[in-house]
Amino acid sequence: MSAPSLSITRRIRRTPFTDRVEANGVKAYTVYNHMQLPTVFESVEADYRHLKDHVQVWDVSCERQVELRGPDAGKLIQMLTPRDLGNMVVGQCLYTPMVDETGGMLNDPVTLKLAEDKYWVSIADSDLLFWIKGLAYGLHYEVDVDEPDVSPLAIQGPKADELAARVFGDAVRDIRFFRYKVLPFEGRDLVVARSGYSKQGGFEIYVDGTDLGEPLWDALFAAGEDLQVRAGCPNGIERIEAGLLSYGSDMTRENTPHECGLGRFCQTQEAIGCVGRNALLRVAVEGPTRQVRSLAIDGDPLPGCSGIWFVYANGKRCGRVTSCAWSPDFETNVALGMIRMTHWDDGTRVEVETPDGMRTATIRENTFI
Amino acid sequence: MSAPSLSITRRIRRTPFTDRVEANGVKAYTVYNHMQLPTVFESVEADYRHLKDHVQVWDVSCERQVELRGPDAGKLIQMLTPRDLGNMVVGQCLYTPMVDETGGMLNDPVTLKLAEDKYWVSIADSDLLFWIKGLAYGLHYEVDVDEPDVSPLAIQGPKADELAARVFGDAVRDIRFFRYKVLPFEGRDLVVARSGYSKQGGFEIYVDGTDLGEPLWDALFAAGEDLQVRAGCPNGIERIEAGLLSYGSDMTRENTPHECGLGRFCQTQEAIGCVGRNALLRVAVEGPTRQVRSLAIDGDPLPGCSGIWFVYANGKRCGRVTSCAWSPDFETNVALGMIRMTHWDDGTRVEVETPDGMRTATIRENTFI
Repeated sequence: MSAPSLSITRRIRRTPFTDRVEANGVKAYTVYNHMQLPTVFESVEADYRHLKDHVQVWDVSCERQVELRGPDAGKLIQMLTPRDLGNMVVGQCLYTPMVDETGGMLNDPVTLKLAEDKYWVSIADSDLLFWIKGLAYGLHYEVDVDEPDVSPLAIQGPKADELAARVFGDAVRDIRFFRYKVLPFEGRDLVVARSGYSKQGGFEIYVDGTDLGEPLWDALFAAGEDLQVRAGCPNGIERIEAGLLSYGSDMTRENTPHECGLGRFCQTQEAIGCVGRNALLRVAVEGPTRQVRSLAIDGDPLPGCSGIWFVYANGKRCGRVTSCAWSPDFETNVALGMIRMTHWDDGTRVEVETPDGMRTATIRENTFI
Repeated sequence: MSAPSLSITRRIRRTPFTDRVEANGVKAYTVYNHMQLPTVFESVEADYRHLKDHVQVWDVSCERQVELRGPDAGKLIQMLTPRDLGNMVVGQCLYTPMVDETGGMLNDPVTLKLAEDKYWVSIADSDLLFWIKGLAYGLHYEVDVDEPDVSPLAIQGPKADELAARVFGDAVRDIRFFRYKVLPFEGRDLVVARSGYSKQGGFEIYVDGTDLGEPLWDALFAAGEDLQVRAGCPNGIERIEAGLLSYGSDMTRENTPHECGLGRFCQTQEAIGCVGRNALLRVAVEGPTRQVRSLAIDGDPLPGCSGIWFVYANGKRCGRVTSCAWSPDFETNVALGMIRMTHWDDGTRVEVETPDGMRTATIRENTFI
């Protein structure tokens, strides 16, 4: 079946870069935080090859920011995540699972500390703004919570350092992983972080003001012609190879961070005050009974996973696959899924119920890349 | 430009009816509450004609429910809306604008009272679950807030009473507007409400359990063959003619209920305790300075409105159009927009900056249907 069309209304928000994305021949979108997120330019396979070999510019405006500002911003940000933020410094980005009172994942954002009383939470696909506003109101915290006009633009791929340096100067080369620097562009200060939703390396530029979007896009394309810079997007193959989870697909409110392999980001045994601490303390002691794993599914290329594919061993269910793609580099179907502890060891052989019938598969302790 | 494709992953959730929707030839979707919502079957124009003449079955599972249950459910539901719920009875559905502390719209759901300590909030396109959970946690209310496995299926069109009666019995004919009855289907109790996102009349059935989805769909199609029942969806033309607002398109967190023409649902001058009361009290006294209006835009059929079209009078901006469609019945472009008080009177002539150039238009006090 061919892919259905997406009907676009104002509710499916355009971004500061949408005109450029369209001019670069976007073929498909998904919707992410009520916003258009490109998924295909040339083809998923061609985009993948190019991402691994060259450098791409990605419109990831849909990574909306929730801004916390005010005297209680620090208290509130710690309330939101089981990760201990006590030593977080200005200039740092931290991956911060956020959970509800039962320890269920609400989002897995990156938090940026901009000042002692100012944070940005760069969110995955759920209206985390509503959760944070609700908490702040209910708890009578003295803090403003809002969505600023900030739209991230990512530079990803092995030539990302070179391209970023040509536009922002050599200072970008010294930015450490998950740190940011504030660098000037057209006389304005922009947060430039070494981060991004791929394993190919690169930066995310927090474009602070819609009016800067097209000038920055154009500057990157002008500077990168000989680097073969192209418009790209988070790649459905590469992110599965890299084990980068997608909130809503590979994890939902049903899952604890520990199930998502994010236990190392939960310092609930320290005396931090956060929502869900009691629930997660229990999980931390007992350990999860299922956890995210990579899988290699045998046989011909499978279609993408639009729902849940159950996983079996000896005829009994032992998990579910939630993302899948054919990998040209590994010449197998790469997948992510939630697997029960009885079958999550490296090398375990299982069967996956795909739209193409039962397929044998192998559980992997590690990601592909 | 042809419509782009929609890439579907698990994050864009299927519904209990998606298999049937696909079998009925859905051509396009939008994404609503992280879920697939059909937008076109035959064509928007053909679907419109059929909706006004016959009866359609709509997969509106994306109207997710937020369930409030527990001793403080009643206190919490009143905290959420400026509408006075003091006299609300079990069996009633109420349109309930919900706002943040500044009076900005967070959602415009329909609230159903199922018991003194149990409510469903049937939501528009934002994660209202997060707001309600955050408030309940912060306020230490004794209430469980969750998303149950409930997926509304709508029956809409002039023959809706006849079709619903054939499946649920003649009791449905006596259901008053915005009331519901609990009626049996295959031995299970379902909430059947006289409501829906059209002006053609009909019902919304709150399908409580995914397993009931296909049996109910099939029962409606089997019973309605001679009524020419068809798969349909909220129609982009009819809903604009009817002045039915779309959250995210025609109103956002920027707008107060008063700006959205929902002032009559705000009893902030009564002694109700709700979030945003202070902000809305001020608006109630001073009145809004802009408000939603219907417009007729002259000339040939325009494309749909994917962003904002500014409205001018004498060369000065006086509003914005946020939804537009060509109406076969009114033989004009019907539109909705937010218009400043200086130009919102019935019959005012304005100009709209469309992708097709400047067009003259007329402001209407009333909706088209």
